[in-house]
Amino acid sequence: MAHRASGRPPAATDNKKLSGELFALTYGALVSQLIKDFESDEEVNKQLDKLGYNIGVRLIEDFLARSNVGRCHDFKETADVISRIGFKMYLGVSPTIGNWSASGDEFSLILDSNPLTEFVEIPDERRTLLYSNVLCGALRGALEMVYMEVEVKFVQDSLCGDDTTEIRLKFVKRLEDAIPELED
Amino acid sequence: MAHRASGRPPAATDNKKLSGELFALTYGALVSQLIKDFESDEEVNKQLDKLGYNIGVRLIEDFLARSNVGRCHDFKETADVISRIGFKMYLGVSPTIGNWSASGDEFSLILDSNPLTEFVEIPDERRTLLYSNVLCGALRGALEMVYMEVEVKFVQDSLCGDDTTEIRLKFVKRLEDAIPELED
Repeated sequence: MAHRASGRPPAATDNKKLSGELFALTYGALVSQLIKDFESDEEVNKQLDKLGYNIGVRLIEDFLARSNVGRCHDFKETADVISRIGFKMYLGVSPTIGNWSASGDEFSLILDSNPLTEFVEIPDERRTLLYSNVLCGALRGALEMVYMEVEVKFVQDSLCGDDTTEIRLKFVKRLEDAIPELED
Repeated sequence: MAHRASGRPPAATDNKKLSGELFALTYGALVSQLIKDFESDEEVNKQLDKLGYNIGVRLIEDFLARSNVGRCHDFKETADVISRIGFKMYLGVSPTIGNWSASGDEFSLILDSNPLTEFVEIPDERRTLLYSNVLCGALRGALEMVYMEVEVKFVQDSLCGDDTTEIRLKFVKRLEDAIPELED
């Protein structure tokens, strides 16, 4: 799969598996720190998206190296890889894919459980906080590295009283400044 | 095992396993945020220890629920449980236990690899940053919840050019304000 390689080789580690609770609590500490630093939910959401983007941009190499996923032929295949391989690998869950737009350029990832929010309750005054917004940024950053511009946002979050947790992905365009892909 | 229960039941999740790279990058974002907020390494180290303490205090219940570990009879057994079960569960690695003091009240956890630092390089001007100091705080917090006061600190960090990564634990005292332990 062609991607914007940074030159840093994939981490030469074995595929260590771990329980997600320490991760969930660490992520909670990050969100708490951002809440201290940026008062409005809107600004915290933006920061989480930005941090997520930077994470996605770095994580994609690890993902490609580990997953051996090839180039996706359409957005449906991309959806499948994100859910079945990406989420599974890094969050231990595979969201349901649904709510496709008629034109096939938008879908939702529906999370029955969200490992990031395992220990979390959102106080009433924080109802506009998108606690897990790092995920949107990470998806956006990772997909950009494989030449896809997508918009990603939470449309429902069970943490804030919604029925489910739903992340919406919209394909915007294929990015053009591609490095010529090597034959394989 | 007796512990200072907070009343929150252990999370009723299955034992999801995930790769640690997203965790490592998220932790990196947390450290970066703290570096922005607190200029000196010393203050960042202190904040990481404090965050870790709060994480450890919460993580212990999950740990006890998952691990089915019983009361440890001595500090040697505690060392073994920390390395073989705790680190393995949450970080996917088991540090070597060594450098016991003659009196048996101090030992080191020696990490051949540190999952938190997989993507990290420390610039020269940050040589006093204890990047992974959250681990010390987490150990201190978790052990306090099972009535052990311990001092925990990094004595070597390969991230800063040391030969290895070594966390030193010193038993201080057994805490006395115990809730009567239920028979089981």
